[in-house]
Amino acid sequence: MVDPVLPSSGLLSPLGLESVRLAPGFWGDRLALDREVIIDHCLEWMEKEGWIANFTGEQPRRGREFSDSEIYKLLEGMAWAGHPGFEELAAVVVQAQEADGYLNTRWSGDRYRDLEWGHELYCYGHLLQAGVARLRTHGEDDFTALVRRAADHVCEVFVEGTRTDGHPCLEMALVELYRSTGAERYLELARRLVERRGLPALGTIPFGPAYFQDDIPVRQARVLRGHAVRALYLASGAVDVAVETGDAELLAAVEAQWERTVARRTHLTGGMGSRHADEAFGDDFELPPDRAYAETCAGIASIMLSHRLLLATGRARYADLAERTMYNVLATAVALDGHSFFYSNPLQVRVAAPAADGMVSHAAAASLRSAWFDVSCCPSNISRTLASLPAYVATTDAGGVQVHHYTPAEVRGAGMALRVETGYPWSGGVRVRVLEGGEGAVSLRVPAWARDAGYSVHRPDDGSPGAAGAAGGQAGPGYLTLPGPWRPGDEIHLDLPTTPRWTRPDHRADALRGTVAVERGPLVYCAESPGDLPPLADIAVRQAPPAEHEADGVVELEVEAGLVTPAPDGWPYDGSPGSPAAGGSTTLRLIPYHRWGNRGPATMRIWLPAD
Amino acid sequence: MVDPVLPSSGLLSPLGLESVRLAPGFWGDRLALDREVIIDHCLEWMEKEGWIANFTGEQPRRGREFSDSEIYKLLEGMAWAGHPGFEELAAVVVQAQEADGYLNTRWSGDRYRDLEWGHELYCYGHLLQAGVARLRTHGEDDFTALVRRAADHVCEVFVEGTRTDGHPCLEMALVELYRSTGAERYLELARRLVERRGLPALGTIPFGPAYFQDDIPVRQARVLRGHAVRALYLASGAVDVAVETGDAELLAAVEAQWERTVARRTHLTGGMGSRHADEAFGDDFELPPDRAYAETCAGIASIMLSHRLLLATGRARYADLAERTMYNVLATAVALDGHSFFYSNPLQVRVAAPAADGMVSHAAAASLRSAWFDVSCCPSNISRTLASLPAYVATTDAGGVQVHHYTPAEVRGAGMALRVETGYPWSGGVRVRVLEGGEGAVSLRVPAWARDAGYSVHRPDDGSPGAAGAAGGQAGPGYLTLPGPWRPGDEIHLDLPTTPRWTRPDHRADALRGTVAVERGPLVYCAESPGDLPPLADIAVRQAPPAEHEADGVVELEVEAGLVTPAPDGWPYDGSPGSPAAGGSTTLRLIPYHRWGNRGPATMRIWLPAD
Repeated sequence: MVDPVLPSSGLLSPLGLESVRLAPGFWGDRLALDREVIIDHCLEWMEKEGWIANFTGEQPRRGREFSDSEIYKLLEGMAWAGHPGFEELAAVVVQAQEADGYLNTRWSGDRYRDLEWGHELYCYGHLLQAGVARLRTHGEDDFTALVRRAADHVCEVFVEGTRTDGHPCLEMALVELYRSTGAERYLELARRLVERRGLPALGTIPFGPAYFQDDIPVRQARVLRGHAVRALYLASGAVDVAVETGDAELLAAVEAQWERTVARRTHLTGGMGSRHADEAFGDDFELPPDRAYAETCAGIASIMLSHRLLLATGRARYADLAERTMYNVLATAVALDGHSFFYSNPLQVRVAAPAADGMVSHAAAASLRSAWFDVSCCPSNISRTLASLPAYVATTDAGGVQVHHYTPAEVRGAGMALRVETGYPWSGGVRVRVLEGGEGAVSLRVPAWARDAGYSVHRPDDGSPGAAGAAGGQAGPGYLTLPGPWRPGDEIHLDLPTTPRWTRPDHRADALRGTVAVERGPLVYCAESPGDLPPLADIAVRQAPPAEHEADGVVELEVEAGLVTPAPDGWPYDGSPGSPAAGGSTTLRLIPYHRWGNRGPATMRIWLPAD
Repeated sequence: MVDPVLPSSGLLSPLGLESVRLAPGFWGDRLALDREVIIDHCLEWMEKEGWIANFTGEQPRRGREFSDSEIYKLLEGMAWAGHPGFEELAAVVVQAQEADGYLNTRWSGDRYRDLEWGHELYCYGHLLQAGVARLRTHGEDDFTALVRRAADHVCEVFVEGTRTDGHPCLEMALVELYRSTGAERYLELARRLVERRGLPALGTIPFGPAYFQDDIPVRQARVLRGHAVRALYLASGAVDVAVETGDAELLAAVEAQWERTVARRTHLTGGMGSRHADEAFGDDFELPPDRAYAETCAGIASIMLSHRLLLATGRARYADLAERTMYNVLATAVALDGHSFFYSNPLQVRVAAPAADGMVSHAAAASLRSAWFDVSCCPSNISRTLASLPAYVATTDAGGVQVHHYTPAEVRGAGMALRVETGYPWSGGVRVRVLEGGEGAVSLRVPAWARDAGYSVHRPDDGSPGAAGAAGGQAGPGYLTLPGPWRPGDEIHLDLPTTPRWTRPDHRADALRGTVAVERGPLVYCAESPGDLPPLADIAVRQAPPAEHEADGVVELEVEAGLVTPAPDGWPYDGSPGSPAAGGSTTLRLIPYHRWGNRGPATMRIWLPAD
């Protein structure tokens, strides 16, 4: 199966890239963009920055200590995408491996001295994931042989002892390699790495042990904390270990952490992480829209975690969050032309920053997409995620097929073939046409936001169109399961109402008090003001139903807003907080958040002050 | 004159430590704490950490690259305080100077290679300030000779060329040494350093050039930006240069920067800086209470800048901000026992963190005071500031004496001697008693917060007490100037009403929307909930007049608050924002912000959700 995550047990079995083909549409277009633009863009930058040449050793090493991992992530993406450059790039990596399996361009000769910051096991993690992708898309070759040798080397060095890596990643990679090869030593090391963390397994760092989740064992923790990508990769690895070892306690622990994290530490976009200094979650309800870090890689990691929990449990809640994060973090992080990227994804930007030239510091890059970063983890992570996205769309179980995400596609599973036709996310109508029939049920996810969803089943053989209506009804959030048998030509019409809705924050989210946001379907909307007129600081929206209109295939919204006359500059706490309504009113155009920042420097905000 | 800042021109002339003696009271007690506890605490930690031994070279060097500056700041504080340990500590420093005047324990042998991050000129800045303090409190000795040699060395190396230091500080130190010695080369180098910055004068760093104010020349900048301490030290040095060179344009530029920074980038406490990652200001109206960085050293630097602008212009606005910052940042940053310190001073803390043991990362130390830090700039900065605080209290001009800050003290200036008696800040009554008479006017600052201030003048020689009332009246914000002549026994009674007041934020301060704060006199109040009952997340205050009561000499306040029943955990944006008022009501105790965190782990908030 051509799939990045293939659990040997769990409630649902994924359908891989050979079973799910995306057609042109929201995600199909982005897959094409990845194949045609993003992968080559990444390749060019890695060449330019010398990160690939690091493997030949013919020049002084360049890039950060973890730059090897960028090549591995790109290889993984190239493998899923069937990119013709895979073998050439893989060959550069293959020749750099040492005799005993060790491979790292930064630490060769000085191995495993700095597990806290060295990222050696982290790099192996991405190497193994690239190897899994190659195994599943191609089969064994020199590169997969390298990957096995590297994995065996790591097992030998780390299976005993108390140590682990400062950046989780290897855990889930080992489990996946175990799933691909059946070699149980990989699963055993993954299990030990998960169990070691928090005993503690690492030395002291200024950020404290929670930064790399070494403050408490995984199965005792109650919430995700510290560095967001680290926390989410670790949790993903823990789910993989739990599923393969039948460890219900560990799975339940991660589920509880997910619940509390979603309830208290997740931005409206699905973005995770509120702190720039250590790229960390922050405390419960610390959810600043302006300083939301919401790192692109954390969003991707969150999708990975939610997908794993969905496969293990079948709960729609996990697919709901994955969808939110796909449309509002993953899609946001890449420019429409595929040539620039957000590292962080704030929910408010007050200053229309000028365009950045060339490679920029990831720390500085919150307000405009950049072609590349000094820490450039996000572009290659976007690439491998888009390339494998079909694997997230649908699953099977003993009863039939489940469709979790709606985008034009053909899905083959449980002996059936289905064509999904939809204008999603712009419209909420989904038509599932049976191409090849079968006995199993077809289950369709009804997202939690879809109130009053309806469906109808059309079986042409039954005769008149009127009969179809009789087989329809209302569907509440969760899965709408329609039993078979299905015959070619049968159709299911699902109608997910996409009426724009006003969203209010929990009162404990202090930074959002007195604001509202607008969502429509799975999309979070924002006000973007390229010319800064009216200033987005001086608006107060009225919560009447927004008007919809379409422009270039994108649904935009209009809301009415009062203009606040700002208080004169002085001491900003003198009781002159501005005069709402005195400044007149305006119509505010809202665009999907993922579209912002594609028309030059602009200010932006998702959370709008309420009138 | 024993004073840290002695401009040769300007509207007001400072009165130094020999002219202003603090008696027991809010600040007098803290001066005593500095002399008796804080200085020795710093000395012990610097010994323990090996930062003093770095000067002997008998051990591997310890501490960060700028640790020399901590010794210099401590020496400055010891000089102002007349601490008996000065000479012994100074002797350790003296023997470390190289033949040509160079002195730095980190970069010796590798001089001036890393001006961006090396802090060499920054360290000289603090060395020179210690030298000025020694010159003014004692006169020439081996240490001041060392300082002159170091200053001459720096002048020789840096007077030509385009370079400056990544951390401003040397500018104001050079001007002050010029003021003490008359050597114009010091002023000239200071002038050049101020003019060079922003041309640019420094290399590229990941944080970008604004971090060290190298993005634009000082006289063209419109607001303070980047690293807050750097920005404020640079602005202070620019004022010093402007005053000594008669550069009205430069002075006006800094005044305008101060105005905009105060209007848009200053927390209610006077704290400056909103970003942890680079200890920087952040954008206009980026004023998060929870992630307010408000570094202690930035507060001190702000007091230094405002004091300089006050001397130059005589505007009460500068003294107002200095007072706010003294009571709500400087006083907050040090524990009541003088043995622990805040590095950052957030306006909200959601988690009652356990006490930190020993030295902690400054990055992690936002929620509890620590005995010491890896970057321990704040304790010694507090020490030197408290030791020189009398110099901020009063000034003279051709017309008489001005009292800017109220605390029990004796003030001698313009040929007069005045005794200030007051329970300030707990009460707003100030009695100024003439001990030695004179012809000049006495001016008393009426803070901007003091609405309906009144005063009366009592001249015993006039006869009946009733006559005193006739010589009184109302006084608006600014300076109440009462003309002489004054005779011994004359009294002025100033009554600054300290009725607690509800304060509302500017509507553009997004993070504060829907909240109110309580102030009383110069003090900002906060809710501190050691036991977290009621949870400070679940209150909504009613803005009725707070009740006052005194406890152990501290005025506490009580306000009524509704209790919000939190929404059940789930998705925090589902339109269930909690039920205000459904949870009943409570009485919330408010304490002065500077007192918080002295009774063990606690949550805290200044900005309270409004009912």
